[in-house]
Amino acid sequence: MDNLYTALVHFPVVNKRQKPIGAALTTIDLHDIARASITFGVRGFYVITPYQDQADLAEQVIGHWTRGEGARLNPSRKQALELIRVTDTFETAVQQIQAEQNQPVVTIATSAQKHKKTISTHALKRKLVPDRSYVLIFGTAWGLADELMEMCDLRLDPIKGTGDYNHLSVRSAASIYLDRLING
Amino acid sequence: MDNLYTALVHFPVVNKRQKPIGAALTTIDLHDIARASITFGVRGFYVITPYQDQADLAEQVIGHWTRGEGARLNPSRKQALELIRVTDTFETAVQQIQAEQNQPVVTIATSAQKHKKTISTHALKRKLVPDRSYVLIFGTAWGLADELMEMCDLRLDPIKGTGDYNHLSVRSAASIYLDRLING
Repeated sequence: MDNLYTALVHFPVVNKRQKPIGAALTTIDLHDIARASITFGVRGFYVITPYQDQADLAEQVIGHWTRGEGARLNPSRKQALELIRVTDTFETAVQQIQAEQNQPVVTIATSAQKHKKTISTHALKRKLVPDRSYVLIFGTAWGLADELMEMCDLRLDPIKGTGDYNHLSVRSAASIYLDRLING
Repeated sequence: MDNLYTALVHFPVVNKRQKPIGAALTTIDLHDIARASITFGVRGFYVITPYQDQADLAEQVIGHWTRGEGARLNPSRKQALELIRVTDTFETAVQQIQAEQNQPVVTIATSAQKHKKTISTHALKRKLVPDRSYVLIFGTAWGLADELMEMCDLRLDPIKGTGDYNHLSVRSAASIYLDRLING
């Protein structure tokens, strides 16, 4: 599929008391999710932050690895980080995807929490059609705020392990969802 | 299963020219792989480094999150990092697992490279028996050295995406292998 995108949201997300916040950028998220995205054929990876200083930090990291010394030292990292696009809102990301593919965008939220009306990655895979684009959305901090979850067209089941522990890093969760979608 | 272990090897691994090296610790590996390990029911997560300063660094991180301020701030992180055991060699880790479970240990290497005689995670799952312990082994840097790969009882297929890109982070790879083993 050449119509799959990923998005990492820093606002609106929640803190550990489930209060809405904006989260700081974690630069390793950019590397790990870009590397997973390119592995699984993702067309573009949106890093979404409303904060100019955080957007500048993201651009510095991307610049170092795609045009600076990092690009020379590690060409495979360059290739991965070239997937990243930084936008100030989720809506802007969706508009850009729609413009790039010229077809409607299906927004798919992920969460470690239980929500109403979630579907499995397997069920999502059966729904995929070529004349739609798809964006898999990951939340930083303690996850996507409810207002964003509810705006999305679809919500995926949380990743369950063997017990109740549901604190995977967003880097791990994004990698597992992508593997399930492509190889599951 | 309560007989599954993970191990993150810093020596012997290879650099990007496939030369054997010892790699430095990356502290986020400890967090992410501990969180994935506890999610998927792993009994213990071995961090293996022959370098005393790196072992000390690992113990500082573990101490902060399991007994220090971090433990108070984030109990779920405490729970994950309590899985970690630091050893100087892979052989020591295997001996400790054998002593803990009092049964033979099956060593399972992972790699992003193609190797002879690898098996799928699905095939591994069918082989699992309760009277053996299993340790899934992940390499830092550019992956496990051949001498270690060849010592292992089993080798898993590389994680394949949609193309040839095979540079997932070890954090992503460990998460995906564990999800495949438990949920696949």
